[in-house]
Amino acid sequence: MLYSKFFGKTKKSSKEYDSVNATLLIKGGFIDQVMAGTYTYLTLGLRVLNRIEQIIREEMDTIGQEILMPALTPISSWKQTGRFDTVDVLMKTTPANIFAKAKNDTEYVLNPTHEEVVTPLAQKFVLSYKDFPFGLYQIQNKFRNEPRVKSGLLRGREFRMKDLYSFHTTESDLKKYYEKSKEVYMKIFKRLGIGKDTVITLASGGSFTDDYSHEFQTICETGEDTLFYEKTNNVYFNREVAPSQAPKVQYEDKEKLPRKEVKGEGIIGVEELAEYLKIPVEKTTKTLIFETDDKRIIAAAVRGGYDINEDKLRKVVKCKALKLADEKTVKKVTGAEVGYAGILNLPKEVELYIDESAGGRLNIETGANKTNYHSINVNFGRDIPIPEKFYDLKVAKDGDLNPESNERYQVFKASEVGNIFPLYTKFTEAFNYKFVDRDGKEKPIYMGCYGIGPSRIMGIIVEKYHDDKGIVWPKEIAPFQVHLIGLDLKEESINSKVQQIYQELVNRNIEVLFDDREDVSAGEKFADADLIGIPNRLVVSKRSGDKIELKKRMEKKTELLTLPDIIKSL
Amino acid sequence: MLYSKFFGKTKKSSKEYDSVNATLLIKGGFIDQVMAGTYTYLTLGLRVLNRIEQIIREEMDTIGQEILMPALTPISSWKQTGRFDTVDVLMKTTPANIFAKAKNDTEYVLNPTHEEVVTPLAQKFVLSYKDFPFGLYQIQNKFRNEPRVKSGLLRGREFRMKDLYSFHTTESDLKKYYEKSKEVYMKIFKRLGIGKDTVITLASGGSFTDDYSHEFQTICETGEDTLFYEKTNNVYFNREVAPSQAPKVQYEDKEKLPRKEVKGEGIIGVEELAEYLKIPVEKTTKTLIFETDDKRIIAAAVRGGYDINEDKLRKVVKCKALKLADEKTVKKVTGAEVGYAGILNLPKEVELYIDESAGGRLNIETGANKTNYHSINVNFGRDIPIPEKFYDLKVAKDGDLNPESNERYQVFKASEVGNIFPLYTKFTEAFNYKFVDRDGKEKPIYMGCYGIGPSRIMGIIVEKYHDDKGIVWPKEIAPFQVHLIGLDLKEESINSKVQQIYQELVNRNIEVLFDDREDVSAGEKFADADLIGIPNRLVVSKRSGDKIELKKRMEKKTELLTLPDIIKSL
Repeated sequence: MLYSKFFGKTKKSSKEYDSVNATLLIKGGFIDQVMAGTYTYLTLGLRVLNRIEQIIREEMDTIGQEILMPALTPISSWKQTGRFDTVDVLMKTTPANIFAKAKNDTEYVLNPTHEEVVTPLAQKFVLSYKDFPFGLYQIQNKFRNEPRVKSGLLRGREFRMKDLYSFHTTESDLKKYYEKSKEVYMKIFKRLGIGKDTVITLASGGSFTDDYSHEFQTICETGEDTLFYEKTNNVYFNREVAPSQAPKVQYEDKEKLPRKEVKGEGIIGVEELAEYLKIPVEKTTKTLIFETDDKRIIAAAVRGGYDINEDKLRKVVKCKALKLADEKTVKKVTGAEVGYAGILNLPKEVELYIDESAGGRLNIETGANKTNYHSINVNFGRDIPIPEKFYDLKVAKDGDLNPESNERYQVFKASEVGNIFPLYTKFTEAFNYKFVDRDGKEKPIYMGCYGIGPSRIMGIIVEKYHDDKGIVWPKEIAPFQVHLIGLDLKEESINSKVQQIYQELVNRNIEVLFDDREDVSAGEKFADADLIGIPNRLVVSKRSGDKIELKKRMEKKTELLTLPDIIKSL
Repeated sequence: MLYSKFFGKTKKSSKEYDSVNATLLIKGGFIDQVMAGTYTYLTLGLRVLNRIEQIIREEMDTIGQEILMPALTPISSWKQTGRFDTVDVLMKTTPANIFAKAKNDTEYVLNPTHEEVVTPLAQKFVLSYKDFPFGLYQIQNKFRNEPRVKSGLLRGREFRMKDLYSFHTTESDLKKYYEKSKEVYMKIFKRLGIGKDTVITLASGGSFTDDYSHEFQTICETGEDTLFYEKTNNVYFNREVAPSQAPKVQYEDKEKLPRKEVKGEGIIGVEELAEYLKIPVEKTTKTLIFETDDKRIIAAAVRGGYDINEDKLRKVVKCKALKLADEKTVKKVTGAEVGYAGILNLPKEVELYIDESAGGRLNIETGANKTNYHSINVNFGRDIPIPEKFYDLKVAKDGDLNPESNERYQVFKASEVGNIFPLYTKFTEAFNYKFVDRDGKEKPIYMGCYGIGPSRIMGIIVEKYHDDKGIVWPKEIAPFQVHLIGLDLKEESINSKVQQIYQELVNRNIEVLFDDREDVSAGEKFADADLIGIPNRLVVSKRSGDKIELKKRMEKKTELLTLPDIIKSL
């Protein structure tokens, strides 16, 4: 392909985006940002994406059949599984204007995942035990109403997704397939060039399941996830599910002091509060008020310095979805403005859950449930009954222990490249999808789902494989194998030589990006080649004489070789 | 591929859908209907779709570069072109529930077409005259808020689309490229097997442009479009834009009769009314009230037996969008319930447009603008002023003349397989996208857009190529080249022979669907093969002996051949 005719040539802009992958991919002309969280793949980017998807497809074909489901789905299917009103990344469509409304006023779900489509589909075709197990997969665009979109291709509102769904007549067959899928996934990551840094971790099923799921995480300095590794059992946990035990507090009060109410107008953050009260942060308590989908009011408390893990909390309080209570509700149940909630004297209708980090302390601070006031020297057993149970409601932090092994976690940054979920009978039951067994009886069907985000992987590979000059693509997914640079092109002999070389490579089905621009300096062409990151750079110039200069993107050295030698080495 | 393991095996159901393509594709296991207008492509269907898209891609690569734009776009871009409030197929997204709303309450457009994305994209990269012309295309899912979805894959709310956009520094360069695109398109249709029946027609730009566009229409009995062919100039018009002159009326009144008001309670349709009044339908007049996007009220009248063409009307009254007025408005401006509007005594704020078919008549009927009443023996010049101009506002009918040549049209049924639009500077101006010319001056950029719907084409090919047994795929897009049927498989020698043949074909990269089912009768296997429509059917059985029976799907005869002969003939 001729670079002079190429749409999306590298941009001279020095604009930095929110992540390395966004900056390099946009500068290099791989993608363009349409708005936060949605991108156009330009020709270079689309070539990389297609390669990633082709590798995934080839491996998926060993355990499933490819289909293509629509993004639009009737709302009724999502009502049937109970997810329409609870999944917080769900978007629906609606007519955009009065003329559209006049023509068709129906709303549809825009799928963030396809259990609501694939389950009724399977139900139409496969009912006999003879046809199980089977896997159906697709590669297409998913839509998620993400609150924060950032990190370039790592988190988008619209992104490429491979999703596979498997169907089984027994739980053990699901588990067998689930383990097999791990192998297939690891093979894919190996082929994509990230196999050796990718580990399997325990993770949350998000709002999709209450069970553990498994994530494939690629260790990477700029990763947005944090892994907690417990050596004893050789288990990686995603931070969001890492069981966590706070280290013992560092202060030692000997006796219970008299409880006091202290004015602290507008002082809300625990750091600021600790400083104001001249107490360690560990003595403060953070209390937040939540509302659940089943209309309950929850107060959740952790020791200052920790955050509430909403997913852990959701499982503890046993609800499908929860959100921070609005100002009005906070005021109603605590009697105070937002920021002064505490664990003292909450009304009966509020369910109180306290994290283990908040226990075992003397003379603690907590919000007074009174605007601008904080209670200090509060003590369990005297001011508040000792709860029947302390929970694990917090987001794990570096320094925390695994509660089972009491071992301190090792902590890594990583990026998720895939995830798999055992869905069991959750969706087949919702659609009353059963099979007829050998004995003629109807029995439940077990399901699993298995995701990989090809666009996300593209971003992660850039995060992992780049240097200060640009991207360093693994060979398997590079947009071209050769970046051919012609210099001194105004000299007829050189121009015709490089054209010949280009043709020869094309004829041999070697994919070449040929920088044939005449009005661009050598330095600029080299900089562009480094930025774009194609594995092999060939330079033809006056200096290269009869030969061609070869430089690998990953190496510093250059070699002068003949064309046959180069073709051989490729 | 083994048919026994195939998801989406043919369904025994005899259910008939709204079209031949839906019925055959669903029965044959190519697609599944998720809801009206959205389909899942099962493995067989996806293979056909991929082939169609690959042919399109290869030809598009000769005039453009492939990219991939997102479906979600900021509303602001659509506001900038003024289309957000007027395009009646436009859908937007919105959070589906309160939890989603709490996380991100932004709405987005779900693109039915991509001018609002590609124009700002081009603007970011190409500003110098040196880089023009260029074409960018993509193949992905489009979303349209269609009022009626029907005819299987022919009209959907979500469908596959190839859309190309070209950019030019002069109008003549746009026209050159536009003509070139017609050649490329005709080559694609030839490769898809529908070239000889596909013609280029003049059509409307819909709400996208006020100019003519060009459609590629495949002549087909079950086509949903009607083409009006004018031989004199060798031009095909789509019915929606065919200029139309009604044939002269067949009755001959000699003199103007006295005007009367006649009661006709609840009689609204022109046929019913003509019968009730004992007059020919041609004496009746149909008057409809519309509202425009710029808040004007329009009355439009045609002779009984014709319908108003909203697109022609929109152009005549010069507005961006219009819709039938609601009951309240009709009542306000006519003083009567819906159904009794007429061209007599309309209030001044109503603009009246009368079709030429309604002129040149004596003693006509028109609604009395009074509930349950009709005026008869109404005459232009006496009861109503003769309008300055009669318009062409009607949907053309078989029998109509071309107003220029006075030639009676030949009428064909056809299905649209592609369309191209000259957009001129409509979108580049909206985004203020200009280029810098050799002389250093900023000048306007001309644009064209070029669509082909791969999923739609799949449906049309089935409409054209089928018989009473099933689909007859053109070789170029068939899901497999060979449908291998094994019979008498319980006999070890036959089973191993057919397995060998299957392996041999696979090894030679011949795509085979192998019906290896043991519990299905020969008749059922033959019926399935005919339904699925793969070009070559091979049968291995006791009867075929040392040889293999070959039958082409398009032919009746069978031949007994050796494997090498068969491989040769493939």
